[in-house]
Amino acid sequence: MTQYQFSFRDDYSEGCHPAILRALQETTLVQQIGYGNDAYSIAAKNLIAAMMPGSNADIHFVSGGTQANLIVISAALRSFESVVSAQTGHINGHEAGAVEASGHRVEVVPVSDGKLDVSLISPLLRQVGNPSSTQPKMLYISNTTELGTVYNKHELAALSDFCRTHGWYLFLDGARLPSALAVDGNDLTLADIAELTDVFTIGGTKNGGLLGEAVVITHPRLKDGFIYHLKQNGALLAKGRVLGLQFRELFQDGLIVKLAADANERAMGIARAIEKLGYPFVVPPCSNQLFPVLPNRVIARLAAKYLFHTWQQVDGQHAAVRLVTSWATPVAACTQFIADLTDLTAAGQ
Amino acid sequence: MTQYQFSFRDDYSEGCHPAILRALQETTLVQQIGYGNDAYSIAAKNLIAAMMPGSNADIHFVSGGTQANLIVISAALRSFESVVSAQTGHINGHEAGAVEASGHRVEVVPVSDGKLDVSLISPLLRQVGNPSSTQPKMLYISNTTELGTVYNKHELAALSDFCRTHGWYLFLDGARLPSALAVDGNDLTLADIAELTDVFTIGGTKNGGLLGEAVVITHPRLKDGFIYHLKQNGALLAKGRVLGLQFRELFQDGLIVKLAADANERAMGIARAIEKLGYPFVVPPCSNQLFPVLPNRVIARLAAKYLFHTWQQVDGQHAAVRLVTSWATPVAACTQFIADLTDLTAAGQ
Amino acid sequence: MTQYQFSFRDDYSEGCHPAILRALQETTLVQQIGYGNDAYSIAAKNLIAAMMPGSNADIHFVSGGTQANLIVISAALRSFESVVSAQTGHINGHEAGAVEASGHRVEVVPVSDGKLDVSLISPLLRQVGNPSSTQPKMLYISNTTELGTVYNKHELAALSDFCRTHGWYLFLDGARLPSALAVDGNDLTLADIAELTDVFTIGGTKNGGLLGEAVVITHPRLKDGFIYHLKQNGALLAKGRVLGLQFRELFQDGLIVKLAADANERAMGIARAIEKLGYPFVVPPCSNQLFPVLPNRVIARLAAKYLFHTWQQVDGQHAAVRLVTSWATPVAACTQFIADLTDLTAAGQ
Amino acid sequence: MTQYQFSFRDDYSEGCHPAILRALQETTLVQQIGYGNDAYSIAAKNLIAAMMPGSNADIHFVSGGTQANLIVISAALRSFESVVSAQTGHINGHEAGAVEASGHRVEVVPVSDGKLDVSLISPLLRQVGNPSSTQPKMLYISNTTELGTVYNKHELAALSDFCRTHGWYLFLDGARLPSALAVDGNDLTLADIAELTDVFTIGGTKNGGLLGEAVVITHPRLKDGFIYHLKQNGALLAKGRVLGLQFRELFQDGLIVKLAADANERAMGIARAIEKLGYPFVVPPCSNQLFPVLPNRVIARLAAKYLFHTWQQVDGQHAAVRLVTSWATPVAACTQFIADLTDLTAAGQ
Repeated sequence: MTQYQFSFRDDYSEGCHPAILRALQETTLVQQIGYGNDAYSIAAKNLIAAMMPGSNADIHFVSGGTQANLIVISAALRSFESVVSAQTGHINGHEAGAVEASGHRVEVVPVSDGKLDVSLISPLLRQVGNPSSTQPKMLYISNTTELGTVYNKHELAALSDFCRTHGWYLFLDGARLPSALAVDGNDLTLADIAELTDVFTIGGTKNGGLLGEAVVITHPRLKDGFIYHLKQNGALLAKGRVLGLQFRELFQDGLIVKLAADANERAMGIARAIEKLGYPFVVPPCSNQLFPVLPNRVIARLAAKYLFHTWQQVDGQHAAVRLVTSWATPVAACTQFIADLTDLTAAGQ
Repeated sequence: MTQYQFSFRDDYSEGCHPAILRALQETTLVQQIGYGNDAYSIAAKNLIAAMMPGSNADIHFVSGGTQANLIVISAALRSFESVVSAQTGHINGHEAGAVEASGHRVEVVPVSDGKLDVSLISPLLRQVGNPSSTQPKMLYISNTTELGTVYNKHELAALSDFCRTHGWYLFLDGARLPSALAVDGNDLTLADIAELTDVFTIGGTKNGGLLGEAVVITHPRLKDGFIYHLKQNGALLAKGRVLGLQFRELFQDGLIVKLAADANERAMGIARAIEKLGYPFVVPPCSNQLFPVLPNRVIARLAAKYLFHTWQQVDGQHAAVRLVTSWATPVAACTQFIADLTDLTAAGQ
Repeated sequence: MTQYQFSFRDDYSEGCHPAILRALQETTLVQQIGYGNDAYSIAAKNLIAAMMPGSNADIHFVSGGTQANLIVISAALRSFESVVSAQTGHINGHEAGAVEASGHRVEVVPVSDGKLDVSLISPLLRQVGNPSSTQPKMLYISNTTELGTVYNKHELAALSDFCRTHGWYLFLDGARLPSALAVDGNDLTLADIAELTDVFTIGGTKNGGLLGEAVVITHPRLKDGFIYHLKQNGALLAKGRVLGLQFRELFQDGLIVKLAADANERAMGIARAIEKLGYPFVVPPCSNQLFPVLPNRVIARLAAKYLFHTWQQVDGQHAAVRLVTSWATPVAACTQFIADLTDLTAAGQ
Repeated sequence: MTQYQFSFRDDYSEGCHPAILRALQETTLVQQIGYGNDAYSIAAKNLIAAMMPGSNADIHFVSGGTQANLIVISAALRSFESVVSAQTGHINGHEAGAVEASGHRVEVVPVSDGKLDVSLISPLLRQVGNPSSTQPKMLYISNTTELGTVYNKHELAALSDFCRTHGWYLFLDGARLPSALAVDGNDLTLADIAELTDVFTIGGTKNGGLLGEAVVITHPRLKDGFIYHLKQNGALLAKGRVLGLQFRELFQDGLIVKLAADANERAMGIARAIEKLGYPFVVPPCSNQLFPVLPNRVIARLAAKYLFHTWQQVDGQHAAVRLVTSWATPVAACTQFIADLTDLTAAGQ
């Protein structure tokens, strides 16, 4: 092995796509109004809105995913109302208690593949009307999930139906939504998501941007007063132009989904090689996050050359690892990784 | 007058300094660890720390000023402890109740020039020990203030003494601290501020950056656990590198203070012209924010060509306006503004 | 003077009216459902409701005034919405920041006599729609006020009109509402208050009860989910019967207002004597709280025999004191106080 | 069966012990200082303190259990710190999200018998130091637990050791602590609990009082500023005397534990009869709460004559019910219940 150490830790290890750098350069001395009312933010919103005709959504840009989640959730809920999340959900355990600090309980639902369905969340209806219980009022799902899995249109529609029947809001965390849209066989469009959910986000940070998430709100009650929640949480940037400009570039000619497709393609190449080597996965791979189960011996050797997270110990000899690719992952890095894993596998037999 | 409309509304109407754009370009494909542990953030912290030898400060970068203020204040205070602010303070009335939403009362002190002193804040000691009252525990000041005025070393030391005597934290909001450091006759250094306060910020957004504030913490109790507060408030960016890189550039060879000096110089040029025309100021000008009192007739004419805020009506015929320059304000824009104001003044006589 | 030391400090220095003790005795072994669904609470609500025909109010009983205020206010407001209060208002400065701890700003309005009117609160409309400002959404008034003054029907109607025009809730803190209803010349009924406000309280603690405040809600949006707010704030007592039973007794045959009338009468007797002795008042006395201005010398002598609060220093020689009577204040104590004050006054001449 | 319907729903269906009524009667016209500084509260604190020599505890009285829990927990924790509870813990799911509304996550640990031990809570140490995770800082246990089980001295000492090793606070919810102290074979004293925990409560509501819980704080950091937290949460009653007087009576000659012993004895009489009839229990009974598993047919018949909660369905034919006795439960009611259950059992065979 060489000394070169490449990171498959996450999809935010690099800077941003050249188109964004170019736009920053070109506009740097143009004076703009602050706090999200600049020409670039308006252009970006128009580009996104054009992908969801008739949705009449309010679109805001914020600087990060945890910020987006906590503002959306705390703005939507009264203090006794709770948000329902898969145990693997980002808001549960990966955001340092941001939702609870904003005053709300996260109702945790155990899952196997990161996804929720009606049968899993229905038991929470037992709490309804009991003054001693929090009242579930929002369903939080991620797409792609924290395990890289995706919802199809039928599944999302079923959750949407449930939520509308019971007066819950449906919030889709789209930190990796471009990746979900780029998955082979995906049948969901942005327009579908706008129609089936009440609020969702589109992540820029993990999909070619420097930073930034778009918050797309379709439910009228969630739109009302959202700007104050942004300000109050420190999310209304003086130079909102920095966020708007990035999303303008990312939504120009569908760039953001193209970048996600590149990331997925890199990951799936690695996935196919891993499968061929006979290793199982925690969940079937389809997007830019892979969770193969490897021998500890192999993991230790790979770790000398590559950066990645060990997800969880599976048994005394094996662990699941997380491998993530981004829009910027070079094909050569993937090829090298496959070659190294192949060598290590052969050496172990 | 020409059709060209120039903005003196604020110091965040433009993008960022070319050095930052160049650094973004150069580093964009370099992989870095996320959440503030990247090489650029570390380099930036070292550059800042070098200006405050012996201070042993913890330095964090966040995306905006309201975010910095609310996290610093809410992290420092217990729920019954309050923060003392000038009525003109940014946290009082300009942040949509962010401090109150985090559970704390802002004790408001009327001021004439944006500055607090011991005689103004001492009356709050009457609340100490009364279970029916909030307990003042932090003093919040801004430098430059929201009126563009500055504290000198003697004044800051007096407030620091008071705070240490009474067990209050002293927090200096430095959204425009580079401007204060660049004021003619300023005798405060970053090292002084680190010594005299318990926590302060250094604004990047208004001083050449795209976005970002440095939070500098010297008090051990405020350092403890701060990283969790950052995460919980959505302030720990996945690509913390974006903030770190900017501060690395801004603190390279004192660039940030040079840019502030340029902004101040532009403003003071305008100020001297305004004085010469015989107009008074709300407070004596010294930094990049001017608050001249002009006839409404003149204001209306200027507003056709320039953007600026009307601060407050002074009497039936006059109002104070706010004129702000930035590192990017062209000398030509200032010259033209002076010429226009001179013409309008002559026409009115 | 004798050694006997009598307290005019407040109206909660004694236990409770004998009718309540008798009812506690009679019912103690009767089993009842918990959490406010007991027969006594239902009977009490019916008695109160009968005084406000057609109001369709929801009535809840909680254990204290600060608890009532903080739950009503925090249940009504979104995090960026604020409550407007007179500077003398109980929620401003007498509740240890309870409102702010629940996440809301108190907008403070200076007053001379404890009362608000439209001209005093109108300036807050300037904040409406500004994303940097909290949004006023509730008006908080007290009746009697913290200075013992009262609103008449015309005044309350004017505030009610303003609130309805601007979409604010009107909340009347009635910790001493029975005293207000018993004031000579009062033209407000409970039915008027139910019609003109959106939510109000009726204090039991200061009006013959051991503890307890009734919260009366007429606005549908404030009714919704209130039970969860009660539970979540620890205000839903297992033995809600203890509160219900007291209010059943207090509202039997108008007992609570009779007790308040007794307290007022005692205070007004003292007030007339003080006036006769030539001492001024901070505000004209009318209820069970008096704020006479006395020489410091006299205050010092009185303090050897009576307990009372010194309200504020008026000048080097004089201070305002607060004298409060309750339903249980003996006439003899008032007579003795008047005699002592008369003696001290004569001695000083 | 007769028409008489007796309630075994809970231990707060009756009023209070005659000694309390007598004391209320005797003291009702005695003037006392408000807000917990009255002579009765002081006497009550002295009586409690005398049972924990050397503990140097701060003692406060509040009106209810949820209020006690939420104030203790929110006063102790910083926003990113969490409290660890058994899934059956009262704070988890029975208090409408009070802890979360105060800004803290409840870390939920599945249990079989309502009790926690070191092996169950140790996995939470994995979160320590991870900025994406809440930081466990307090362990919450109940004694008796919500399933009527108790901790012995050895078990409590083990949890105490763990907490001190890891810098966690140990909080014992004693809403039914008198019942635990009165359990046959109990080896824990109040002095032990004061030594082994950092803060605990003693419930009055469920043990002969009208309302009220004592909060006993031994950890210096938790004592500091607690009075402000009480005030801010509306827990500092104007007539604190009402709470103090009850605890004075309840701790006179150990009355509170005698009452709990009576309640336990009634329950254990029923328990022995149920065992004799061959019915199993969810957990072995020892205190005043029983969880027998009965046939649905029997439950339906009993429900016509007695009030009780159905705890959970066990299978298609059986459910666990909760039967609770109090200090006021007549022996005759227990005898009748046993007779009825015996008849119904015989009829079913």
